[in-house]
Amino acid sequence: METKAQVLYDFAAEPGNNELSVREGETISITNQNIGGGWVEARNSRGEVGLVPEDYIEINQAKPLPSGGSAAPLDLSFFDSHTPAPASTAQVDVAQKETPVTPGLPSSSPDEPEGTETGKTSNNAWQSGGTGHPQAYQGPGAEDDEWDDEWDDVKSSGGYAESDAVDGGAMNRGGAHGSSMKIALNKFPGFSKSGPELYLLAKQPAKGTKLPIYMGEVGPVWAYPDYQLDCVVADPKKGSKMYGLKSYIEYQVTPTTTNKPVNHRYKHFDWLYERLLDKYGSAIPIPSLPDKQVTGRFEEEFIKMRMERLQGWMSRMCRHPVVSSSEDWKTGKRKAEKDETVGVMVFATIEPEGLQDLDMIEVEQKCEQFSRFTKAMDDGVKDLLTIGNEHWKRCTGPLPKEYQRIGKAFQNLSAVFTTSGYEGEATLTDAMTAAGKTYEEIAQMVAEQPKKDLHFLMETNNEYKGLLGCFPDTIGVHKAAIEKVKEGDKLVAASKITSSEKTGMAKRASTMSYSLQAEMNHFHSNRIYDYNRVMQQYLEEQVKFYEKIAEKLRQAHSQFTTM
Amino acid sequence: METKAQVLYDFAAEPGNNELSVREGETISITNQNIGGGWVEARNSRGEVGLVPEDYIEINQAKPLPSGGSAAPLDLSFFDSHTPAPASTAQVDVAQKETPVTPGLPSSSPDEPEGTETGKTSNNAWQSGGTGHPQAYQGPGAEDDEWDDEWDDVKSSGGYAESDAVDGGAMNRGGAHGSSMKIALNKFPGFSKSGPELYLLAKQPAKGTKLPIYMGEVGPVWAYPDYQLDCVVADPKKGSKMYGLKSYIEYQVTPTTTNKPVNHRYKHFDWLYERLLDKYGSAIPIPSLPDKQVTGRFEEEFIKMRMERLQGWMSRMCRHPVVSSSEDWKTGKRKAEKDETVGVMVFATIEPEGLQDLDMIEVEQKCEQFSRFTKAMDDGVKDLLTIGNEHWKRCTGPLPKEYQRIGKAFQNLSAVFTTSGYEGEATLTDAMTAAGKTYEEIAQMVAEQPKKDLHFLMETNNEYKGLLGCFPDTIGVHKAAIEKVKEGDKLVAASKITSSEKTGMAKRASTMSYSLQAEMNHFHSNRIYDYNRVMQQYLEEQVKFYEKIAEKLRQAHSQFTTM
Repeated sequence: METKAQVLYDFAAEPGNNELSVREGETISITNQNIGGGWVEARNSRGEVGLVPEDYIEINQAKPLPSGGSAAPLDLSFFDSHTPAPASTAQVDVAQKETPVTPGLPSSSPDEPEGTETGKTSNNAWQSGGTGHPQAYQGPGAEDDEWDDEWDDVKSSGGYAESDAVDGGAMNRGGAHGSSMKIALNKFPGFSKSGPELYLLAKQPAKGTKLPIYMGEVGPVWAYPDYQLDCVVADPKKGSKMYGLKSYIEYQVTPTTTNKPVNHRYKHFDWLYERLLDKYGSAIPIPSLPDKQVTGRFEEEFIKMRMERLQGWMSRMCRHPVVSSSEDWKTGKRKAEKDETVGVMVFATIEPEGLQDLDMIEVEQKCEQFSRFTKAMDDGVKDLLTIGNEHWKRCTGPLPKEYQRIGKAFQNLSAVFTTSGYEGEATLTDAMTAAGKTYEEIAQMVAEQPKKDLHFLMETNNEYKGLLGCFPDTIGVHKAAIEKVKEGDKLVAASKITSSEKTGMAKRASTMSYSLQAEMNHFHSNRIYDYNRVMQQYLEEQVKFYEKIAEKLRQAHSQFTTM
Repeated sequence: METKAQVLYDFAAEPGNNELSVREGETISITNQNIGGGWVEARNSRGEVGLVPEDYIEINQAKPLPSGGSAAPLDLSFFDSHTPAPASTAQVDVAQKETPVTPGLPSSSPDEPEGTETGKTSNNAWQSGGTGHPQAYQGPGAEDDEWDDEWDDVKSSGGYAESDAVDGGAMNRGGAHGSSMKIALNKFPGFSKSGPELYLLAKQPAKGTKLPIYMGEVGPVWAYPDYQLDCVVADPKKGSKMYGLKSYIEYQVTPTTTNKPVNHRYKHFDWLYERLLDKYGSAIPIPSLPDKQVTGRFEEEFIKMRMERLQGWMSRMCRHPVVSSSEDWKTGKRKAEKDETVGVMVFATIEPEGLQDLDMIEVEQKCEQFSRFTKAMDDGVKDLLTIGNEHWKRCTGPLPKEYQRIGKAFQNLSAVFTTSGYEGEATLTDAMTAAGKTYEEIAQMVAEQPKKDLHFLMETNNEYKGLLGCFPDTIGVHKAAIEKVKEGDKLVAASKITSSEKTGMAKRASTMSYSLQAEMNHFHSNRIYDYNRVMQQYLEEQVKFYEKIAEKLRQAHSQFTTM
C-alpha cells in the first residue's frame, strides 16, 4: 500500500519544524506525497513521521495497485474541466475529459499527452469541457466528482498546509501574502537545498525542447513568444458537496487563446503553483498564491480580493516566456508530478544561443549585483507596503470619521441656528447644512478612495514582495553553484571529478548566469512596466479625487452669501 | 491705611472657594479691591480673610492719605498712554496725560470727565499721549513708570488671579479660553448673585444718558452708532523692567477713530474686561480675555495668537453699540472703579423708547427661548471645537507624517531602481522621485493648512464659546427678576413693598426683557455675519488647498510615460 523511497543525501531535521532526519541509503515510507513546497511526509523504520525534502530522496516507482475509491490512481490532468460524475463512480474515463489542442497557444508542445486512452490530443489547461460547449458554472455540487475527492484527500491527509494557518481571521492587505510565501520558502526550501551539483555534474542533460536565451539590447533575454498568453479569472461562485457539508469557491478561468472558460478551485491553482515551483523555482521566481483564508472564506470582499490576486498571479505566470510555454499547462496531473526535470535540472533545458561562456568572476559579480538589488527592492517594497497599510487604515478609519463628524457638526449648528427665531437666518442655515452634507460626502469619498488607487499600488507592491521573496532562494542556487565551481580544482586533485567534468561545471555555471540575467532582465522590464502603470493609475485617481473634493467644496462655498 | 466697608446683605461663603461669610451690618476691612469678577478680598474682625461679593458691601468713601510710593492713589485712566516718568516720582500730574476728545467716536458723552485738574476734556482710551505726537513703541523700560508699579501691585497682592493658573503650559487652541471664562463666572459670580431687586426696587434709577432700545425689523434693537468704532491690535513687543528681572509683552492698540497707537499690556486689557464685566455683565455677555499663559509667554506663536485673540475681543467690544459707547473707554482708572452703575443697575440706564411694557408671560417666554437657544448653540459650538481640535491634531501630526513617509517611500524605491543597471530606467525613476517629492510637498501643505482655514473656524467658535458661556449668568439675572416680580402680590400682602413698587418692578422687568431681546438680536445679527464669513473663508481656503494638491499631483502624473 505505501510508497517506499530511498534517501539520497543526509538530511538533518530542523527542530520544531515537523521535519524528519534521514541518512543516505535509508529506506523510508512516504505517508503523504502531496505536502507541496518540495516536501513529502515520510515515516522511518522507527515509526517516526516528519517532512523530508523531496529532492533528498528517490521514490520507488512501484505504484500501489488501483483499489477503487478516493485513493484511486487517476492520471487526470489538473487542467481538465470537471464534468459531473456520480459520486459512486470511482473511476472516471479520462478520455471524456480530454479536449482538443488549442491553436494559438504559445510554444504548443510537440509532445502529445500520454495516458489518454481515447487518443484525443491534449488536456490543455485553459480549455473547456470535452464536448466542445463552453463550460459555464454548473451550480453547487456539479463539481462534486472524483477529482474533488482526490483533492480533498490531499487536504485532509496533509495537515502541514502552512498557509491555512497564516491568516486565520480578518482580511489582510499587503501583509501576509508575500510573507507567507517567504515562510513557505524558508520552511520548505526544496529546490534550494537540492544542490546545484545535480545539474553541474549531470551525465545526461535533459532531452527535448531547449529554452533559448538570446542577447537583447539590455543583455541576455528569454525568447519571448509572439503571442502573449493571458487569462481572465472571473465569476467566483460558491459550490458545495457532500450534501452541503463541504463548500468551496469556484472561479471561472478563461484563457485569451480559446476564450472558453474552465472552473477552478483555489486548490487547483495551488497544485499548479507547486508544479511550477518544483520545475522552475531554481531559475525563475515563482511567487506563491494569495493566502488561504480559513475563516470568512465566503465573504464577498475576500472572494473578490482572492480572485483579483489569483488573476494577478495567473497573468504574471502567463506573461513569463518560460513559464507560459511550459508543458505543465497541458500535461496530466500524474504525469506532471512524475516530471524529472525539476529543481536545478531546469538549467539543463536552458540554451544560451550563440553566447560566449562567461568567466566565473563575471558570473559572481552578476549574482552579487542581483542579490543586492533584489534585497534593496524588497526592503523598499516592504516599506511602501507598511506605509500604505497604515495610510489605508487612516483613510478608511479615523479620517472619514472625522470628516463625517465635521459635517455633522456643521449641520447640527445649522439646525440650532434655525431655532433662533431671528429673521433672515435661512440663507446661512441652508448653506451651512449644505456644507455639512458636503463634508459627509467627502467622508465617504475618502473612505472609498483607497479602493480606487491605493489598492492597486498595494497589490502591485504585494505581488513584487512575493516575487522578491523568491529571489534569495533563486540566487542561493547560483551562489551554491559558484562555490561548487570554485572547488573544481580541488575536486579534480582529489579525483572526485574529472578535468572535463570541471570544464563542464564552469560552462553550466555560465548557463545558469545567463539564465539569471535573462530572468533579471525579464523582471526589470516587467517592473518598469508595472510601476509606471501603477504610479500613473495612482496619481490619476488621486488627481480625480482631489479635484472632485475641490469641486464639491466650491459648490458648497457658492451657497453662502457674499458680504 | 485700610479701606473699611459695611456689609449690606448676608453672604454665606461657599466652602473651598476662598470666600468669607459676612452678615448684614458687619464692618470688614478691604484687603484687596482688585480681585475682579465682582469680588473683593476682605478681612473680618476675627482676622479671617476671604472673598466677598462687591455688591453685598458698601465701601467707606474715606480714602487713605497719599503716602508716596507704589500704593499712591493715582487716578490715571487706564487708557492714558504711558509716558516715561522717573521711578522716584510718586505722584504724576494726571492732567499731563489727558488728551482732547476724539471727534467721530460713537455716542460722545455730554458728561465731561471729572477729576481733571487742568480742565482738559477727555482721557480717551484710544488716543496717544498728551502732547499730540503719536505714541509709538518706546522700547523696553519706557513703560516702566508708576502705572506699571501699580499694576504689578495688583498682581502681586492678589493671588486670586485665577487665570494665571488656568493654562500653565502648552498653548491651547479652542479649549481653555472659553472655559476659563466660565470658571471665572462660576467662581466669581459677582453680578449674577447681586440680586435683581437692587434694580427692580431701586428708589432712584441712574441719572445721565440713557441707552435707548428701538423697535427694529427683527424686534427690539440697540441704538447703533453711525460710526463703527474698531481698533487694531498689532506689533507686539517685548519689554522689561527692574533691570530685566520682569519682562512683558506690549501690544500696539490703534483705534480707527484717531489712527494713533497706544501701547498696552495684557493686564491693561484685563482691567478693561473687569470694568466692562462689572458694568454690563448683567445685560450683555462680556467674554473673558484670552487665557493668560505663564510658561512660554514669549514664544512667538503664543504672542501672535494672544494678539489675534485680543484683537478679536477688542473688535467684538468695539462692535457692540452699548459697550462701544461706554464711558469706561475714557474714564480715569480710579473713577471707573468708583462707578456705581454696575451689576444689575445697568438696566436703570436702559430706555425702551416708545415701546409698550411687556406682560410677564412674554418676558418669561423670551427668556426661556434665549436660554434654550444659547444652551443649544453652546453645545453645538463646543462639539465643533472638540472635533476641530482633533482634526487639527490629525492634520498637523499623523497625516502629514504619513504623506511624508509615502513621499520618502516613492523616492527610496526610485533610488533602488536606479541601481538596477537596466537600461531605460531613468524615465521611471525621475518620475517616481518627482512623485515622491510631490507627496512631501503635500505633507507640508497638509500640516500648514489648518493655520489657513481651520484656525479661523476654531477662533470664531472659540469666541462664541466665550460669549455663550456668559449667557447663563446674563439669563440668570433675568430669571431671578422674573421670580421676584412673580412674588409681587405676596410682597405687597406682607407689606414689604408697596403696590406702586410692584407695578414698577413689572415695568422694570419689561425693560430688562427688552434689553435681553435687543442683546439677542445683536447677537444673532453678529452671529449670522460671523458664521457666514468664517464658513466662506474656510471653504474658500479648503477649495484652494484641494485644487493645489490636485494640480501638484497632475504635474507629478504628467512625468510618467504614457503606455
